[in-house]
Amino acid sequence: MDRTFASDNYAGVHPEVLAAIAAVNTGHEISYGEDSVTERLQEVVKREFGERAEAFPVFNGTGANVISLTSVLPRWGALVTTSTSHMHTDEGGAPEKTAALKLFPVPTPDGKLTPELLATEAWGFGDEHRAQPLAVSIAQTTELGTLYQPDEIRAIADAAHALGMTVHLDGSRLWNAAAALGVPFRAFTTDAGVDILSLGATKNGALAAEAIVVLNPDNVDGIVYLRKTAMQLASKMRFLSAQLLALFDDGLGLRSAQHANAMAARLRAAIEGTPGLSFSQKTEANAIFGVLDNAVADRIRARYRFYDWNRARGEVRWMTAFDTTEADVDAFAAAIREELAR
Amino acid sequence: MDRTFASDNYAGVHPEVLAAIAAVNTGHEISYGEDSVTERLQEVVKREFGERAEAFPVFNGTGANVISLTSVLPRWGALVTTSTSHMHTDEGGAPEKTAALKLFPVPTPDGKLTPELLATEAWGFGDEHRAQPLAVSIAQTTELGTLYQPDEIRAIADAAHALGMTVHLDGSRLWNAAAALGVPFRAFTTDAGVDILSLGATKNGALAAEAIVVLNPDNVDGIVYLRKTAMQLASKMRFLSAQLLALFDDGLGLRSAQHANAMAARLRAAIEGTPGLSFSQKTEANAIFGVLDNAVADRIRARYRFYDWNRARGEVRWMTAFDTTEADVDAFAAAIREELAR
Amino acid sequence: MDRTFASDNYAGVHPEVLAAIAAVNTGHEISYGEDSVTERLQEVVKREFGERAEAFPVFNGTGANVISLTSVLPRWGALVTTSTSHMHTDEGGAPEKTAALKLFPVPTPDGKLTPELLATEAWGFGDEHRAQPLAVSIAQTTELGTLYQPDEIRAIADAAHALGMTVHLDGSRLWNAAAALGVPFRAFTTDAGVDILSLGATKNGALAAEAIVVLNPDNVDGIVYLRKTAMQLASKMRFLSAQLLALFDDGLGLRSAQHANAMAARLRAAIEGTPGLSFSQKTEANAIFGVLDNAVADRIRARYRFYDWNRARGEVRWMTAFDTTEADVDAFAAAIREELAR
Amino acid sequence: MDRTFASDNYAGVHPEVLAAIAAVNTGHEISYGEDSVTERLQEVVKREFGERAEAFPVFNGTGANVISLTSVLPRWGALVTTSTSHMHTDEGGAPEKTAALKLFPVPTPDGKLTPELLATEAWGFGDEHRAQPLAVSIAQTTELGTLYQPDEIRAIADAAHALGMTVHLDGSRLWNAAAALGVPFRAFTTDAGVDILSLGATKNGALAAEAIVVLNPDNVDGIVYLRKTAMQLASKMRFLSAQLLALFDDGLGLRSAQHANAMAARLRAAIEGTPGLSFSQKTEANAIFGVLDNAVADRIRARYRFYDWNRARGEVRWMTAFDTTEADVDAFAAAIREELAR
Repeated sequence: MDRTFASDNYAGVHPEVLAAIAAVNTGHEISYGEDSVTERLQEVVKREFGERAEAFPVFNGTGANVISLTSVLPRWGALVTTSTSHMHTDEGGAPEKTAALKLFPVPTPDGKLTPELLATEAWGFGDEHRAQPLAVSIAQTTELGTLYQPDEIRAIADAAHALGMTVHLDGSRLWNAAAALGVPFRAFTTDAGVDILSLGATKNGALAAEAIVVLNPDNVDGIVYLRKTAMQLASKMRFLSAQLLALFDDGLGLRSAQHANAMAARLRAAIEGTPGLSFSQKTEANAIFGVLDNAVADRIRARYRFYDWNRARGEVRWMTAFDTTEADVDAFAAAIREELAR
Repeated sequence: MDRTFASDNYAGVHPEVLAAIAAVNTGHEISYGEDSVTERLQEVVKREFGERAEAFPVFNGTGANVISLTSVLPRWGALVTTSTSHMHTDEGGAPEKTAALKLFPVPTPDGKLTPELLATEAWGFGDEHRAQPLAVSIAQTTELGTLYQPDEIRAIADAAHALGMTVHLDGSRLWNAAAALGVPFRAFTTDAGVDILSLGATKNGALAAEAIVVLNPDNVDGIVYLRKTAMQLASKMRFLSAQLLALFDDGLGLRSAQHANAMAARLRAAIEGTPGLSFSQKTEANAIFGVLDNAVADRIRARYRFYDWNRARGEVRWMTAFDTTEADVDAFAAAIREELAR
Repeated sequence: MDRTFASDNYAGVHPEVLAAIAAVNTGHEISYGEDSVTERLQEVVKREFGERAEAFPVFNGTGANVISLTSVLPRWGALVTTSTSHMHTDEGGAPEKTAALKLFPVPTPDGKLTPELLATEAWGFGDEHRAQPLAVSIAQTTELGTLYQPDEIRAIADAAHALGMTVHLDGSRLWNAAAALGVPFRAFTTDAGVDILSLGATKNGALAAEAIVVLNPDNVDGIVYLRKTAMQLASKMRFLSAQLLALFDDGLGLRSAQHANAMAARLRAAIEGTPGLSFSQKTEANAIFGVLDNAVADRIRARYRFYDWNRARGEVRWMTAFDTTEADVDAFAAAIREELAR
Repeated sequence: MDRTFASDNYAGVHPEVLAAIAAVNTGHEISYGEDSVTERLQEVVKREFGERAEAFPVFNGTGANVISLTSVLPRWGALVTTSTSHMHTDEGGAPEKTAALKLFPVPTPDGKLTPELLATEAWGFGDEHRAQPLAVSIAQTTELGTLYQPDEIRAIADAAHALGMTVHLDGSRLWNAAAALGVPFRAFTTDAGVDILSLGATKNGALAAEAIVVLNPDNVDGIVYLRKTAMQLASKMRFLSAQLLALFDDGLGLRSAQHANAMAARLRAAIEGTPGLSFSQKTEANAIFGVLDNAVADRIRARYRFYDWNRARGEVRWMTAFDTTEADVDAFAAAIREELAR
C-alpha cells in the first residue's frame, strides 16, 4: 500500500530497528527479561530519565498504560484523565475490563489537563463512596496533537502531588514531544514531576515494543508481577529491548520524530488558508485536525486513506510518520486543495 | 550465551522468520489486522485446520489462552484443566486476574486429562452456587512433555460436548505435537473435536507471535473485542502474521519441531540407564523430566543452565529447541553422565 | 438521634415492614430463593410491571445496578449514563471494580439524559477500539431530585433501542417517582421501553432489600448466576422478599413516598424566597438542592445534620423520608430562615 | 414448611434476633456504619477477640470471605485453601469473578489443612510466573463438619507466617466451633495466629448478617473501601450490627450452636450402626455425612428434605440448626432406620 496519512502505525519498521533485532539474534539468552540486551536498556533509560529510572518492556501502549496505572493505584483507586484520552476512548475499555480501573474523564478544549481541570474530579479523598482519585494521567503529545510545555506538566504534577496523587504520562508519542520541545526527555518527565510513563516506540518505527518507565519508584508497586498478570511479559524480551535501544542509539528515535513533525508542519503550511478548510487544534507534533465538509473529505479519502475524528463536526485527522516524504506531503496537499476547490 | 537446556524460549529467532518479517516491511499497511499479510494467514489456517478456521494473532501464549477461554465461557463460567496446566501454575494468575476466569484444576499422573478425570469436576450444571464448568482446556504437547493421541483428544471432546462444554487446546507446542504424531494438524484438532486452540510459534523459532485459532465458530463469541480489551491487539499486525506464516511456509515449523523432538530423544537415549538417574515422564516431544539427586543436578547446572521442576522430588526439566545441535546434546549428555558418576 | 434531613437512609424501618418480616418467620423455607414468599413476590411484580416481569431480590442498590447492567452487556460492553449518576459518583467504582463495566458519563444540567445527550456517547458500534456502548442507564427519580416524565423515558428508550442498546433504570427511589407522577409503575417503566430496573426499597422504609426487576427478558442473560457471583444472593431470601412485598401491600410504599415528597414540597415552600437562598434544581420528589453561603450552611448544620453536595458552589442537599413529620419540616425551615437572616 | 435436615439456612430468624432488630429501630441513625449500634458492636468484638479486633458488618458469608482475602492480598496474590472449601466449590466463582483472586485448592481427606498440605502449594515466592500464594484460608468448622483444635490452627498459622503468608479463617459456623471446643473465640482465632476472619451469624439464627473481623490490622488494608466496591456496605447498618450483637448478648449464639451440635450428635447416635449406613466424616459440630445407597437416600428424601453431597459415592449431608428439636431428630432417625431396613 502507498503511504497514507491515516496513522503513524500504518508505517512499517525502520530498517535500523530491524537491523538491531537481527544483531541480538545470537545464541541463547535467559528469557523473560534477564538478558543482556534488557540490561543495556536499563543503562540507557537511566541516562535519559535519571538514575532512579527503570524500564519494563511490554508489547503495546495499552499494556504500558494499564500496567502503569495499576502499579500506582490501590484496588479502590481511580484516575483522572481527559475525556479524549486514549485510555477512555480508544482502548476498548481495557483499563476497566482487565484491571478494574475506574476513570474520571474530564472534558477539555485541547486534550490537555490543567490544575483547574484536575480539581473538578480530584476530590472526595477518604470517602469510601467515591473511587479514590489517586492518579492523574496525561498524554504527551496529546491525542489531539497538542503539546504540554514542561512547566505545564510541572503545574499538574505539583497539584496532583499536593493531593497525594501519582502522575502518569502516556508517552506513546514521547519522541514526537521531545522533538517538538527540543529538550531532553527528563526535562518534561522526571524533572517535571512525572512518576511513571508509557514510552512508545511502535508508532515511531519499532515493530512492536513499548515500555513502562518508572521514574519515581517510591509511588510504584509490583510491576514485575502486574506485567505478567496483564499478559504483557515477553519470553524473548531481548527483541523488545533491542527495538527500544535502537531508537535511543544515535538518536534514531529523535530524528524520526523530528522528521514526522516536520512533515506535519509542511502539510499544514501547504493547506492553511485554503477556503473550506479550518483546523480545530494546533499542529504541534505529527497530527493535523482539519475541519471540512464531509463530502469533500470523502473525495479526498477516495485518493488517500485517513480517518474521520468526529464526523458530526466534519473533523478529520491527518497523521505523518517517520517514513512520510516531502513528495507524499506535497501530493496530498495538492489533493486536498483540489478537492476543496471543486 | 551458549545454548542451554533450560527452555525453548531461550533460543532466538529462526533466520527464516526474521527474513519473513523483513519481507513484509514494505510501505504502509492498514493497522490492527486489516493488512494483506494477515489476510494470507487466514488462507493458510483454513488450509491447515479446515474451512471454518480463523486465526487471531496475539503477542504471547498467555494472551492466546486467556482470550480463547474468555470467548467460549459466559461470565459465570469455569474451565476444567490439569493441575499442572500452564494456565494454573505458570501464568501468574492471569486467567483469574485479567479475565475473571475460574479454574477447576484436576490432578493427573502425566499432565493428561481423560474423560474420567474430566468428570471429577464437570458437574453442577445449572446450580448457581457452582461456577459453571463450561469449558475444558488441555495442552498438546502437555507441560510434562507428554502427548495426546488423536483418539484421546476425541474422547475428551466427546465427553465435554455431551455435557455442553467447549474444548480448548493449548498448543504452545503444537508443532512439536504434529511432529511427534506425524499427522496433519487437523487430525488431532478440528477433526478430534477441538473448538478453539492457542497456536504457539515463539517457542518454535518466532520472535513473539502466537494466535488464537477458532475451529468451531458456533461456540465462540466476541474475540475481536476480547483481544482488544485483553491488550493483545498488535497495531502492526502484519509482522505477527508474517512470523506465523513463516512457520507454515515450506514446513519450517514442522522441520524445526521435528529437530527439537529428535534432539530430546537423542538426549534421553544417551542418558537412559545411567545409575542415579530416572525419569518421571515419557519423552514424547522436546522435554525430558529427569529425577536425580539435587546435589548432582546442581553440579550439572553449574555447567549448563536448566530448571528444577520439583526440587522436593529431585525432578528437573531439560528442554531442546529448534537450534539445539547434536554436539550440544552429546556434550550435555556427557556432562550428566560425568556428574552422576562422581 | 433526632430525625435529620441528611438522607432517606438515616431513617429506620417502617413498622409495617418489620411486622412483615416477623410474619414470615415461621418454620423452615428452602433457602436461596425457592421459598413461598419470593414466589408471592413474583406474582405481585407481574401485577405491577407486566406479565413478563420477574424480580430478583438483592441486598442493596449498588448490587441491583451492577448486576442489572452486567446481565445486559457483553464483556466488551459499556454503559452511557449521566456524570452525576450514582453508578459513576457514589458506588466507589463498584461497576468497574467488581464487574469490569465501562462507563461513558455524560454531563447534564439536571441529572436527566435526553436522546441528544445519549447520542454524544452512543457511537462507535462495531469498532473494537471503543468499548461498545450497548446499554444506557437513567435514574428515576434522579440523583438531583428531578423526575422524568413517561414520554421522556420513552424517547430515550426509543433512541437506545434503535441503536441496539438496552435500557436500565435505577429506581432506588422508584416509589417517589410513582408518587410524584401519579401513574402506575408500568406507565413509566415497562410501557415506556425500560428493559430492566433496580427497584429500591431500603430508602423507602425497608431494612435492607432491593430487587432487580427484569421487564424484557429477551435482552437479559444469566441473572441467577450473576447475582451469586456478585455476592448478592441471600440465603434466607424470604426475609428480603417480605420487605418488598410489604411496600406493595396496601400501598405502603406509595403512601410512604407520597409523604416524603410532600414533606419536601412543604419544606421548599417554607423557605423559597428567603434572601440568601436559591435552588439549583427543581424539587420534584423528596430532595431539595439549596444554594447558600457555606458559613450559613455550616451554622444550620450545627443544628441539623445534612450533606454538602458541592461546596465550591455552596450547594447542599436536604432530603425527607417516610418518617419526616410536618413539625420536623417546620422547625428545620425556621432554622434555615433564622440562620440566613443572621 | 416443616423443619428439614437440609441446611442450617433453611431455619428462620431466632426470635431474640428479631427483637434486637426492633429494639434499635428508633429514630434516625447515621447511615453506612457511623451509628451507635455498630459502635457497640466494636466494643463487644474487642472483648471477644482482643483489643486490636475490629468488625466490619456485611450481608453474607461470600462477601465476608472475598473482602477479607482481598484486603490481605496484593493484586498478584493467591490463596491456598482446601479443595472442598466453600470459596472454591460453593460461591459460584465469586472470589475469581468479583475480586480477581486466584485459588490454589488442596485436596484433603477431612476438609482440614495441615502445614504439610499447605506446603504443597505455598511455594514460588518471588517468581512472577506463579500467582503469589500470600494467604491461606481455612474454615472452622469445616465444610465437612470437622473441627480444628486450637493447636492445629496454631501450627498452620505458624507455618504460614514463616512464609510471609496471612491467615484467614472462614467462620460461617464459628459459633458451632466455639460450642464444640468449649473455649472462648480468641483461643482458636486471635491467640492461634489468625489474622482475619469471617464471622457468620445467618446460619446461627440471624436474618442476614455476617462480619469481617480483623484481628491483626498490620496485615490488612483498605477494608472500608473494599467493602464498598464489593457492594457489601449496608446503608442502614445498625440493623446488621444489631443481629450480630444479639448473638453475643447473653450467649444466644453459643447456646444456639450448642443446641444444633447436640442435635447432630443425637442424630448420629441414633443411627450409628444401622446396617447399610456408614459415615465419611466425624460429626464434630452440626453436620453429618452419611454414606448409603442412593435409592434409600431418595426414599428418605421423599419424607425429609436434604442434599446429596456426592451422589457418585452415595454421600449425603444432614444438618441441624438452632431450631431443630429432639422430636425432629428422633422422627428423622426413625425414618432413616425404616428406609434402610426395607
